[in-house]
Amino acid sequence: MNLGSIIRDVPDFPKPGIMFRDITPLFRNPAAFRFALDGLTELLADQTFDSFAAVESRGFLFAAPLADRLGKDLTILRKPGKLPADTVSESYALEYGEATLEVHRDGLKAGERVVVVDDLLATGGTAAAAARLIRRLDAEVVGHLFLIELAFLDGRKALGTDPVFSLVIE
Amino acid sequence: MNLGSIIRDVPDFPKPGIMFRDITPLFRNPAAFRFALDGLTELLADQTFDSFAAVESRGFLFAAPLADRLGKDLTILRKPGKLPADTVSESYALEYGEATLEVHRDGLKAGERVVVVDDLLATGGTAAAAARLIRRLDAEVVGHLFLIELAFLDGRKALGTDPVFSLVIE
Repeated sequence: MNLGSIIRDVPDFPKPGIMFRDITPLFRNPAAFRFALDGLTELLADQTFDSFAAVESRGFLFAAPLADRLGKDLTILRKPGKLPADTVSESYALEYGEATLEVHRDGLKAGERVVVVDDLLATGGTAAAAARLIRRLDAEVVGHLFLIELAFLDGRKALGTDPVFSLVIE
Repeated sequence: MNLGSIIRDVPDFPKPGIMFRDITPLFRNPAAFRFALDGLTELLADQTFDSFAAVESRGFLFAAPLADRLGKDLTILRKPGKLPADTVSESYALEYGEATLEVHRDGLKAGERVVVVDDLLATGGTAAAAARLIRRLDAEVVGHLFLIELAFLDGRKALGTDPVFSLVIE
Protein backbone atom coordinates (compact mmCIF):
# COMPACT_ATOMS: atom_id res chain seq x y z
CA MET A 1 0.00 0.00 0.00
CA ASN A 2 1.34 3.43 -0.92
CA LEU A 3 0.74 5.60 2.13
CA GLY A 4 2.39 8.58 0.49
CA SER A 5 -0.39 8.69 -2.08
CA ILE A 6 -3.13 8.50 0.58
CA ILE A 7 -1.67 11.46 2.43
CA ARG A 8 -2.77 14.45 0.36
CA ASP A 9 -1.14 17.74 -0.50
CA VAL A 10 -2.98 20.94 0.39
CA PRO A 11 -1.20 23.97 -1.11
CA ASP A 12 -0.68 27.25 0.74
CA PHE A 13 -1.45 25.97 4.23
CA PRO A 14 -0.89 27.25 6.86
CA LYS A 15 0.48 30.09 4.73
CA PRO A 16 1.28 30.87 1.08
CA GLY A 17 4.06 28.78 -0.39
CA ILE A 18 3.75 25.89 2.06
CA MET A 19 2.57 22.52 0.73
CA PHE A 20 0.81 20.88 3.68
CA ARG A 21 0.81 17.09 3.98
CA ASP A 22 -2.72 16.29 5.16
CA ILE A 23 -2.99 12.93 6.92
CA THR A 24 -6.76 13.04 7.51
CA PRO A 25 -7.54 10.78 4.49
CA LEU A 26 -5.50 8.05 6.19
CA PHE A 27 -7.98 7.94 9.07
CA ARG A 28 -10.87 7.71 6.62
CA ASN A 29 -9.40 4.47 5.27
CA PRO A 30 -9.36 1.81 8.01
CA ALA A 31 -7.17 -0.59 6.00
CA ALA A 32 -4.62 2.16 5.43
CA PHE A 33 -4.67 3.26 9.08
CA ARG A 34 -4.05 -0.32 10.21
CA PHE A 35 -1.33 -0.72 7.59
CA ALA A 36 0.35 2.41 8.95
CA LEU A 37 0.08 1.20 12.55
CA ASP A 38 1.48 -2.20 11.49
CA GLY A 39 4.39 -0.45 9.82
CA LEU A 40 5.08 1.81 12.79
CA THR A 41 5.05 -1.23 15.09
CA GLU A 42 7.47 -3.03 12.80
CA LEU A 43 9.89 -0.08 12.89
CA LEU A 44 10.15 -0.57 16.66
CA ALA A 45 10.54 -4.35 16.56
CA ASP A 46 14.16 -4.30 17.76
CA GLN A 47 13.71 -1.58 20.38
CA THR A 48 13.41 -2.11 24.12
CA PHE A 49 11.22 0.55 25.66
CA ASP A 50 8.59 1.20 28.32
CA SER A 51 6.43 3.99 27.03
CA PHE A 52 5.32 6.29 24.29
CA ALA A 53 5.38 10.07 24.62
CA ALA A 54 2.67 11.48 22.34
CA VAL A 55 3.00 15.01 20.96
CA GLU A 56 -0.30 16.97 20.95
CA SER A 57 -2.40 16.56 19.00
CA ARG A 58 -1.78 14.52 15.84
CA GLY A 59 0.78 12.41 17.68
CA PHE A 60 -2.09 11.23 19.90
CA LEU A 61 -3.73 9.58 16.86
CA PHE A 62 -0.80 7.20 16.43
CA ALA A 63 0.59 6.84 19.95
CA ALA A 64 -2.73 5.84 21.54
CA PRO A 65 -3.43 2.86 19.26
CA LEU A 66 0.23 1.81 19.42
CA ALA A 67 0.10 1.89 23.24
CA ASP A 68 -3.07 -0.21 23.08
CA ARG A 69 -1.53 -2.71 20.66
CA LEU A 70 1.79 -3.05 22.46
CA GLY A 71 0.66 -2.64 26.08
CA LYS A 72 3.01 0.28 26.67
CA ASP A 73 2.56 3.29 28.94
CA LEU A 74 1.50 6.51 27.24
CA THR A 75 2.47 9.99 28.36
CA ILE A 76 1.03 13.04 26.65
CA LEU A 77 3.06 16.14 25.80
CA ARG A 78 0.69 19.07 25.55
CA LYS A 79 0.50 22.72 24.68
CA PRO A 80 0.75 25.13 27.63
CA GLY A 81 -2.07 25.32 30.15
CA LYS A 82 -3.70 22.01 29.24
CA LEU A 83 -2.20 19.64 31.81
CA PRO A 84 -3.76 20.16 35.25
CA ALA A 85 -1.06 18.94 37.63
CA ASP A 86 2.53 20.08 38.17
CA THR A 87 4.39 20.33 34.85
CA VAL A 88 7.77 21.00 33.29
CA SER A 89 7.92 22.84 29.98
CA GLU A 90 10.26 23.43 27.06
CA SER A 91 9.96 26.16 24.47
CA TYR A 92 11.23 26.01 20.91
CA ALA A 93 11.55 28.39 18.01
CA LEU A 94 9.07 28.46 15.14
CA GLU A 95 9.64 30.38 11.95
CA TYR A 96 7.75 33.24 13.58
CA GLY A 97 7.73 33.28 17.36
CA GLU A 98 7.94 30.27 19.59
CA ALA A 99 5.90 27.39 20.96
CA THR A 100 5.97 25.39 24.19
CA LEU A 101 5.37 21.78 25.14
CA GLU A 102 4.58 20.57 28.65
CA VAL A 103 4.56 17.25 30.46
CA HIS A 104 3.35 16.33 33.93
CA ARG A 105 6.26 16.14 36.33
CA ASP A 106 5.02 12.69 37.35
CA GLY A 107 4.43 11.77 33.69
CA LEU A 108 7.63 9.73 33.40
CA LYS A 109 9.79 7.90 35.91
CA ALA A 110 13.56 8.23 36.09
CA GLY A 111 15.21 5.68 33.83
CA GLU A 112 12.06 4.95 31.84
CA ARG A 113 12.77 4.21 28.18
CA VAL A 114 10.60 6.37 25.94
CA VAL A 115 9.69 6.55 22.24
CA VAL A 116 8.45 9.99 21.12
CA VAL A 117 5.58 9.85 18.62
CA ASP A 118 4.39 12.51 16.20
CA ASP A 119 2.85 12.45 12.76
CA LEU A 120 5.50 14.38 10.86
CA LEU A 121 9.17 15.33 11.10
CA ALA A 122 9.78 18.71 9.49
CA THR A 123 12.52 20.93 10.94
CA GLY A 124 12.60 18.92 14.17
CA GLY A 125 11.98 21.74 16.64
CA THR A 126 8.99 20.10 18.28
CA ALA A 127 10.65 16.69 18.51
CA ALA A 128 13.82 18.21 19.98
CA ALA A 129 11.74 19.97 22.65
CA ALA A 130 9.98 16.68 23.39
CA ALA A 131 13.35 14.97 23.88
CA ARG A 132 14.49 17.75 26.24
CA LEU A 133 11.32 17.32 28.31
CA ILE A 134 11.92 13.58 28.62
CA ARG A 135 15.51 14.07 29.71
CA ARG A 136 14.51 16.72 32.26
CA LEU A 137 12.51 13.96 33.94
CA ASP A 138 15.63 11.75 33.88
CA ALA A 139 14.03 9.36 31.44
CA GLU A 140 15.74 8.02 28.30
CA VAL A 141 14.92 8.80 24.69
CA VAL A 142 14.95 5.52 22.77
CA GLY A 143 14.03 7.29 19.56
CA HIS A 144 11.55 9.34 17.58
CA LEU A 145 8.76 7.67 15.61
CA PHE A 146 7.09 9.49 12.71
CA LEU A 147 4.55 8.59 10.09
CA ILE A 148 6.20 10.98 7.61
CA GLU A 149 9.63 12.54 7.42
CA LEU A 150 10.19 15.50 5.09
CA ALA A 151 13.84 14.70 4.47
CA PHE A 152 14.53 17.92 2.55
CA LEU A 153 14.01 19.89 5.78
CA ASP A 154 16.80 17.92 7.47
CA GLY A 155 14.96 17.59 10.79
CA ARG A 156 17.24 14.75 11.90
CA LYS A 157 19.97 17.31 12.43
CA ALA A 158 17.95 18.89 15.25
CA LEU A 159 17.70 15.51 16.99
CA GLY A 160 21.42 14.88 17.35
CA THR A 161 22.20 11.22 17.91
CA ASP A 162 18.65 10.20 18.85
CA PRO A 163 17.46 7.42 16.53
CA VAL A 164 14.72 8.40 14.08
CA PHE A 165 12.16 5.87 12.80
CA SER A 166 10.04 7.16 9.90
CA LEU A 167 7.52 5.10 7.99
CA VAL A 168 7.32 7.35 4.91
CA ILE A 169 10.34 9.43 3.88
CA GLU A 170 9.70 12.10 1.27
CA MET B 1 -11.22 -2.41 37.87
CA ASN B 2 -12.34 0.92 39.31
CA LEU B 3 -11.57 3.46 36.60
CA GLY B 4 -13.04 6.27 38.66
CA SER B 5 -10.26 5.81 41.21
CA ILE B 6 -7.53 5.84 38.54
CA ILE B 7 -8.77 9.14 37.14
CA ARG B 8 -7.50 11.70 39.62
CA ASP B 9 -8.93 14.93 40.97
CA VAL B 10 -6.89 18.10 40.54
CA PRO B 11 -8.45 20.97 42.49
CA ASP B 12 -8.75 24.52 41.15
CA PHE B 13 -8.04 23.72 37.50
CA PRO B 14 -8.50 25.39 35.09
CA LYS B 15 -9.68 27.98 37.64
CA PRO B 16 -10.45 28.28 41.35
CA GLY B 17 -13.37 26.18 42.52
CA ILE B 18 -13.24 23.66 39.68
CA MET B 19 -12.29 20.05 40.48
CA PHE B 20 -10.64 18.76 37.31
CA ARG B 21 -10.88 15.06 36.45
CA ASP B 22 -7.41 14.23 35.14
CA ILE B 23 -7.35 11.15 32.91
CA THR B 24 -3.58 11.09 32.33
CA PRO B 25 -2.97 8.37 34.98
CA LEU B 26 -5.16 6.06 32.91
CA PHE B 27 -2.68 6.20 30.04
CA ARG B 28 0.17 5.43 32.43
CA ASN B 29 -1.52 2.13 33.28
CA PRO B 30 -1.71 -0.10 30.18
CA ALA B 31 -4.06 -2.61 31.82
CA ALA B 32 -6.44 0.18 32.80
CA PHE B 33 -6.29 1.80 29.36
CA ARG B 34 -7.14 -1.51 27.71
CA PHE B 35 -9.90 -2.12 30.25
CA ALA B 36 -11.36 1.28 29.38
CA LEU B 37 -11.17 0.59 25.65
CA ASP B 38 -12.78 -2.83 26.19
CA GLY B 39 -15.58 -1.15 28.11
CA LEU B 40 -16.11 1.57 25.50
CA THR B 41 -16.25 -1.10 22.79
CA GLU B 42 -18.81 -3.05 24.80
CA LEU B 43 -21.02 0.03 25.16
CA LEU B 44 -21.30 0.12 21.35
CA ALA B 45 -21.94 -3.60 20.91
CA ASP B 46 -25.53 -3.13 19.73
CA GLN B 47 -24.90 -0.09 17.54
CA THR B 48 -24.61 -0.09 13.77
CA PHE B 49 -22.25 2.62 12.62
CA ASP B 50 -19.56 3.48 10.08
CA SER B 51 -17.24 5.91 11.76
CA PHE B 52 -15.99 7.70 14.81
CA ALA B 53 -15.79 11.48 15.03
CA ALA B 54 -13.02 12.36 17.48
CA VAL B 55 -13.12 15.66 19.36
CA GLU B 56 -9.72 17.37 19.67
CA SER B 57 -7.67 16.55 21.51
CA ARG B 58 -8.42 14.11 24.34
CA GLY B 59 -11.10 12.46 22.22
CA PHE B 60 -8.29 11.44 19.84
CA LEU B 61 -6.78 9.27 22.59
CA PHE B 62 -9.86 7.04 22.68
CA ALA B 63 -11.26 7.29 19.15
CA ALA B 64 -8.00 6.32 17.40
CA PRO B 65 -7.51 3.00 19.23
CA LEU B 66 -11.24 2.23 18.93
CA ALA B 67 -11.08 2.86 15.17
CA ASP B 68 -8.06 0.55 14.99
CA ARG B 69 -9.75 -2.17 17.04
CA LEU B 70 -13.09 -2.04 15.21
CA GLY B 71 -11.92 -1.16 11.69
CA LYS B 72 -14.07 1.97 11.55
CA ASP B 73 -13.42 5.23 9.75
CA LEU B 74 -12.15 8.09 11.89
CA THR B 75 -12.89 11.77 11.30
CA ILE B 76 -11.27 14.42 13.43
CA LEU B 77 -13.09 17.50 14.74
CA ARG B 78 -10.55 20.20 15.40
CA LYS B 79 -10.11 23.66 16.80
CA PRO B 80 -10.19 26.49 14.23
CA GLY B 81 -7.34 26.87 11.78
CA LYS B 82 -5.95 23.36 12.16
CA LEU B 83 -7.59 21.51 9.27
CA PRO B 84 -5.98 22.42 5.95
CA ALA B 85 -8.75 21.73 3.42
CA ASP B 86 -12.24 23.19 3.07
CA THR B 87 -14.10 23.06 6.41
CA VAL B 88 -17.44 23.71 8.06
CA SER B 89 -17.48 25.04 11.62
CA GLU B 90 -19.80 25.35 14.60
CA SER B 91 -19.34 27.64 17.57
CA TYR B 92 -20.63 27.06 21.07
CA ALA B 93 -20.81 29.00 24.30
CA LEU B 94 -18.36 28.49 27.13
CA GLU B 95 -18.82 29.98 30.58
CA TYR B 96 -16.72 32.91 29.39
CA GLY B 97 -16.65 33.49 25.64
CA GLU B 98 -17.08 30.85 22.99
CA ALA B 99 -15.22 28.08 21.20
CA THR B 100 -15.40 26.59 17.70
CA LEU B 101 -15.04 23.11 16.23
CA GLU B 102 -14.30 22.39 12.57
CA VAL B 103 -14.50 19.37 10.30
CA HIS B 104 -13.32 18.91 6.73
CA ARG B 105 -16.23 19.26 4.33
CA ASP B 106 -15.20 15.91 2.82
CA GLY B 107 -14.70 14.45 6.30
CA LEU B 108 -18.03 12.59 6.29
CA LYS B 109 -20.28 11.29 3.54
CA ALA B 110 -24.03 11.90 3.45
CA GLY B 111 -25.85 9.14 5.31
CA GLU B 112 -22.76 7.94 7.16
CA ARG B 113 -23.55 6.72 10.69
CA VAL B 114 -21.26 8.37 13.21
CA VAL B 115 -20.35 7.94 16.88
CA VAL B 116 -18.90 11.09 18.49
CA VAL B 117 -16.05 10.39 20.93
CA ASP B 118 -14.70 12.58 23.71
CA ASP B 119 -13.19 11.91 27.10
CA LEU B 120 -15.71 13.72 29.28
CA LEU B 121 -19.30 14.94 29.20
CA ALA B 122 -19.69 18.07 31.29
CA THR B 123 -22.27 20.66 30.18
CA GLY B 124 -22.48 19.14 26.71
CA GLY B 125 -21.67 22.24 24.67
CA THR B 126 -18.79 20.69 22.79
CA ALA B 127 -20.66 17.46 22.07
CA ALA B 128 -23.72 19.37 20.86
CA ALA B 129 -21.52 21.38 18.46
CA ALA B 130 -19.97 18.12 17.23
CA ALA B 131 -23.44 16.74 16.52
CA ARG B 132 -24.40 19.89 14.60
CA LEU B 133 -21.25 19.56 12.47
CA ILE B 134 -22.08 15.97 11.63
CA ARG B 135 -25.63 16.85 10.64
CA ARG B 136 -24.44 19.76 8.50
CA LEU B 137 -22.62 17.17 6.41
CA ASP B 138 -25.90 15.19 6.16
CA ALA B 139 -24.44 12.36 8.22
CA GLU B 140 -26.26 10.69 11.13
CA VAL B 141 -25.40 10.87 14.82
CA VAL B 142 -25.66 7.35 16.23
CA GLY B 143 -24.63 8.56 19.66
CA HIS B 144 -22.02 10.14 21.91
CA LEU B 145 -19.37 8.01 23.60
CA PHE B 146 -17.60 9.28 26.74
CA LEU B 147 -15.14 7.83 29.18
CA ILE B 148 -16.64 9.93 32.00
CA GLU B 149 -19.96 11.68 32.43
CA LEU B 150 -20.33 14.27 35.17
CA ALA B 151 -24.04 13.64 35.70
CA PHE B 152 -24.52 16.58 38.08
CA LEU B 153 -23.86 18.97 35.16
CA ASP B 154 -26.77 17.45 33.21
CA GLY B 155 -24.94 17.49 29.87
CA ARG B 156 -27.40 15.01 28.35
CA LYS B 157 -29.95 17.80 28.23
CA ALA B 158 -27.80 19.64 25.64
CA LEU B 159 -27.77 16.54 23.43
CA GLY B 160 -31.52 16.23 22.99
CA THR B 161 -32.54 12.75 21.91
CA ASP B 162 -29.05 11.64 20.82
CA PRO B 163 -28.06 8.49 22.70
CA VAL B 164 -25.28 8.90 25.26
CA PHE B 165 -22.90 6.05 26.14
CA SER B 166 -20.72 6.75 29.18
CA LEU B 167 -18.34 4.27 30.77
CA VAL B 168 -18.02 6.02 34.14
CA ILE B 169 -20.89 8.13 35.48
CA GLU B 170 -20.10 10.32 38.46
